[in-house]
Amino acid sequence: MSTNDWNPEDHVPKEVKDLLQNAEIGPYTYISAFIQVVELLKTQKRTGWLNMGIDHAESISDHMYRMSIISMSLNTENFRDNSNVSPPQKERIDLSQCIKISLVHDIAEALVGDITPKDTTVTKQQKYARELAAIKYLGSLIDPYNNAFAKEMVNLWLDYEEQRNFEARIVKDIDKYEFLVQAVQYEKRYKGSKRLDEFFEGTREQIKTDEVGRLADEILQQRVEFWKLINKNVN
Amino acid sequence: MSTNDWNPEDHVPKEVKDLLQNAEIGPYTYISAFIQVVELLKTQKRTGWLNMGIDHAESISDHMYRMSIISMSLNTENFRDNSNVSPPQKERIDLSQCIKISLVHDIAEALVGDITPKDTTVTKQQKYARELAAIKYLGSLIDPYNNAFAKEMVNLWLDYEEQRNFEARIVKDIDKYEFLVQAVQYEKRYKGSKRLDEFFEGTREQIKTDEVGRLADEILQQRVEFWKLINKNVN
Repeated sequence: MSTNDWNPEDHVPKEVKDLLQNAEIGPYTYISAFIQVVELLKTQKRTGWLNMGIDHAESISDHMYRMSIISMSLNTENFRDNSNVSPPQKERIDLSQCIKISLVHDIAEALVGDITPKDTTVTKQQKYARELAAIKYLGSLIDPYNNAFAKEMVNLWLDYEEQRNFEARIVKDIDKYEFLVQAVQYEKRYKGSKRLDEFFEGTREQIKTDEVGRLADEILQQRVEFWKLINKNVN
Repeated sequence: MSTNDWNPEDHVPKEVKDLLQNAEIGPYTYISAFIQVVELLKTQKRTGWLNMGIDHAESISDHMYRMSIISMSLNTENFRDNSNVSPPQKERIDLSQCIKISLVHDIAEALVGDITPKDTTVTKQQKYARELAAIKYLGSLIDPYNNAFAKEMVNLWLDYEEQRNFEARIVKDIDKYEFLVQAVQYEKRYKGSKRLDEFFEGTREQIKTDEVGRLADEILQQRVEFWKLINKNVN
């Protein structure tokens, strides 16, 4: 299937599609359709965990929820030193923007699903093309109710995808960090019967801001202690 | 069990409690403990749906996620007429504040769980006392890393509980609206084999702002159409 064959509307639940086919719909039908499509983020589990056989894995919206809480909780004072980030960030960080980017950056997955880099049936370019089509479609759904938000949502998504500002850079790091915390929590839940090594390979190196790096180092240190204890108990 | 016997620390997962008992912990251990406690919002399903036997029900964080997206998407222009809200709202609505309140208003449930009004073992006063103890405890967890956020989080929670501003009023309505949309979506998922009437009783009347009322009326109208179709097909 070529990229062009993928159509966001084909992934809208039938009952929502039916709503939109009614000739007399107004702005309130559109926002209700948009809100109903967003439910797909609740019902779809994150693919990486499913592939590892994690029971009761988190949903895509669970992940974005905790990312937004991490965004809120960051101590912006600690971001003064960002030697890994070029150019260095000197302005005040807008955490409200980080929260919004966190909430929107994976929203296209409602229609596209969570495609991991391991999925060889979809190229990186195809994934991007599908997600771009999906975010534009979601924008068109909400547009008749709130044109300004439709634009804002697409722009927040592009901020993240194209890493257009420092807030988007921070959220990219939070995405990795939240994932690391979850991986450690799942390993602990399985009490050492499941190792998720592949998720840790190279992930720390992708975190560029010093502050989120410090958060990641803390959880990685906790992981080291956990496995030390497990291995001690085994031997 | 009296209210005073309920202690938030008793509900912190053992592995997180162990972290906090280490004598040498610093601010990064505290934020990591806080983030790990927030995971409990992912793993706990909303009680109302569980009681109705809904399979694969949403988590508490799924609910707060969609509430935050609804907060972002509201058309503030439409809030000019708020005849049901006293005093009438004349100022500009701060949707960033609505987003933050949406993200925080149920965060104490990480430790308290989702206690519904139907639960006769816990009084309304006990529920409030537990949640207040839990939010203060969560604040104390994040405080050594970010004192300003600890205060902000507790204040956002109190904004909602005490309905201290118009943004909190809007979020209270969004809480009901998101719940109505979900109830309709679950009824449709069960294709008419499950009616959730009790969730609809009195819920619309609790929505006070005209604009969220209009959103609710739209989804309730969709419910009427759905049941008309089901009953037509049955007869």
